[in-house]
Amino acid sequence: MEKFNALYAQSGGVTAVINASACGVIETTRKNSDKIGKIYAARNGIIGALTEDLIDTSLESDADIAALRYTPSGAFGSCRHKLGSIEKHRKQYERLVEVFSAHHIRYFFYNGGGDSQDTAHKVSQISKELGYPITCIGIPKTVDNDLPFTDNSPGFGSVAKYVAVSIREAGMDVASMALTSTKVFILEVMGRHAGWIAAAGGLAAEQEGDSPHIILFPEIPLNTAAFLNRVEECVKKYAHCSIVVSEGVKNAEGNFISEQGLVDAFGHKQLGGVAPVIAKLIKENLGYKYHWALADYLQRAARHIASKTDVEHAYAVGKAAVEMALAGKNAVMPIIVREKSDTYRWSIGEVPLDKVANVEMKMPREYITEDGFGITEACKHYLSPLIQGEDYPTYQHGLPVYVKLKNTPVEKKLNTIFEIV
Amino acid sequence: MEKFNALYAQSGGVTAVINASACGVIETTRKNSDKIGKIYAARNGIIGALTEDLIDTSLESDADIAALRYTPSGAFGSCRHKLGSIEKHRKQYERLVEVFSAHHIRYFFYNGGGDSQDTAHKVSQISKELGYPITCIGIPKTVDNDLPFTDNSPGFGSVAKYVAVSIREAGMDVASMALTSTKVFILEVMGRHAGWIAAAGGLAAEQEGDSPHIILFPEIPLNTAAFLNRVEECVKKYAHCSIVVSEGVKNAEGNFISEQGLVDAFGHKQLGGVAPVIAKLIKENLGYKYHWALADYLQRAARHIASKTDVEHAYAVGKAAVEMALAGKNAVMPIIVREKSDTYRWSIGEVPLDKVANVEMKMPREYITEDGFGITEACKHYLSPLIQGEDYPTYQHGLPVYVKLKNTPVEKKLNTIFEIV
Repeated sequence: MEKFNALYAQSGGVTAVINASACGVIETTRKNSDKIGKIYAARNGIIGALTEDLIDTSLESDADIAALRYTPSGAFGSCRHKLGSIEKHRKQYERLVEVFSAHHIRYFFYNGGGDSQDTAHKVSQISKELGYPITCIGIPKTVDNDLPFTDNSPGFGSVAKYVAVSIREAGMDVASMALTSTKVFILEVMGRHAGWIAAAGGLAAEQEGDSPHIILFPEIPLNTAAFLNRVEECVKKYAHCSIVVSEGVKNAEGNFISEQGLVDAFGHKQLGGVAPVIAKLIKENLGYKYHWALADYLQRAARHIASKTDVEHAYAVGKAAVEMALAGKNAVMPIIVREKSDTYRWSIGEVPLDKVANVEMKMPREYITEDGFGITEACKHYLSPLIQGEDYPTYQHGLPVYVKLKNTPVEKKLNTIFEIV
Repeated sequence: MEKFNALYAQSGGVTAVINASACGVIETTRKNSDKIGKIYAARNGIIGALTEDLIDTSLESDADIAALRYTPSGAFGSCRHKLGSIEKHRKQYERLVEVFSAHHIRYFFYNGGGDSQDTAHKVSQISKELGYPITCIGIPKTVDNDLPFTDNSPGFGSVAKYVAVSIREAGMDVASMALTSTKVFILEVMGRHAGWIAAAGGLAAEQEGDSPHIILFPEIPLNTAAFLNRVEECVKKYAHCSIVVSEGVKNAEGNFISEQGLVDAFGHKQLGGVAPVIAKLIKENLGYKYHWALADYLQRAARHIASKTDVEHAYAVGKAAVEMALAGKNAVMPIIVREKSDTYRWSIGEVPLDKVANVEMKMPREYITEDGFGITEACKHYLSPLIQGEDYPTYQHGLPVYVKLKNTPVEKKLNTIFEIV
């Protein structure tokens, strides 16, 4: 049997565990070296594939590939670039065929979120549309946890753990000082369209009075009066109030709160986040001293506090992608399937890419308490298994050891330059 | 020998390891139960002492006291309240004597930063000034690392580790995405008057091109042109630029940058932090896409990534304080002494409290590179040992187990109420 090469690419916002998926792909490919030739990586996602900017992962040591499991960020670079339809953007697909063909690539693994799975689906159609025999498998990844069919998205469990740990710690800090100092603390987290990440903060609250006391979700338009009442209630009852707020919270008119707040000295609107706007609201109406934090990239890069379960999921979907390709499958994505049992048990399933593209897993309303300020037991039951376990990187000089690959370019075989538009 | 009781109080901003000092104090007192009676804690720092709001730590189990070593925040509550001079505020000191006397307290351990050590010093003068035999020992604590004489301040090593780990992780995230997304990332950290915490971010940069590329210190007035040049240089060279900025950075006129930037819709100045102002500067002059994070309390509460060295320091100064009191010392503070050796070795020394009060340990100019944007090898040599080692808490349900003490009040013996002014 003639052996063909494989190409792996990372797409969209990176996570603490996307490299664990890369590790799963590359290690599984190496174990199947009798069936698959080299495994290349596209530098900066699909852009590297289009520009023939490929990386030869066979030049990396086994130890360095194994270290990917513990390394956050995207080891080969990622990008935000969505391929258009084959009908309208045929040139892009022809270019992919040109690059695949030049490098004997017949397997393509695309690791990303919803938009990226749409791209993966289009690439999977190349055989049919352009006659080049490519096997394309999507690999799920997103901190937003909005991919459909999969029980959860690799990347989410780790950001969830980071947010829950952080609000537990900061909430205790505020509680210690509340008599004479800060009374209200606000932690702004990611999730522009869905409240999954904010919801995860709620896992920190195990007993009456625990932080966070309030969660603000994108799904629930902010009712200012009810919110301020709740803040005041908390401060009266617990002497302080800790709040997790999603960046995507909107007002009653459906506009992002983050966009209504601050202007600079020239009157230009500032995208300063939602936390300072919420803080100002509290200060002006209730007069409480506040502090706020904006986790931003810290939350999705925090490999030092990654969820072991999430790391295992991420590795497993990478491994499964290669196995599915070897089993002759095309245009599918491995997913996490939660088994029906009292303790959390999971296995790998699969779903056709055409079903994944452009479908979002919304947060069910029954995961949010009726008052809109917290999560329900059903939500905790869903979320809790995803943050279980720690999977610490090794440390040197007091800092986590994260691998930097050599990322040696594959010699170009084409004389043509492809312009990304 | 008649046994007298002891009182322990936490003061000022709490840290990830101040409870490790409490653990050292209480465990050492328990081991010396033949010499010291009960160890009480003042609820909310000195305010609890003045209002006779005392906690009986003898009702806590050994296991719960041991768990303090792994628990961030202030287990008994802290406060920001500075006692005035004995001459002008004699009533406060008379009240302390009244409370000490009513509860047979002859040992007072005060755990805090510079202002708190000033208070500790005043309390230590009660014997001489008011004739009540009290032994007062200060215990150092501050994330700001500005206490004099001690090599470093317990609490600092852990925030230093948090900042170095976080900028390493977020910097790698930005690097992965730089081709099509964020090019500049800014992490704002604490340190209004000294750049120690910002400097610690520099430990993450071990090789050419590593994050952070630029550090902005309170000690160096911001030279906008030079700064923008450097940002542009970094983006050209490394495709991205990661910046750690201290909240205390000032402009050439000596004003805080954080206070010059944003106004709300009514024209009121917003204390939104310095990071968004720096981000705006970059966006307007260089046009780069940016992201920024504000770590706020997350950094000083992050027990999950505490420095083992820092935890050991914190425990040791608590233990030493009790031992010094038992050795008949008064008006001293245990300090960390760095021994002259190639590897980091430390021991406990002591310093009179009157020398500590109102003296700040500034960052030496030779710890900052000549251009003002980084740290020198000498600085790394000083900082690196302080972040060594991990000392993970245990986890349950995916979250760190932090102890909540019962904090049972001691029955009041006085009929009087003392008003805090």
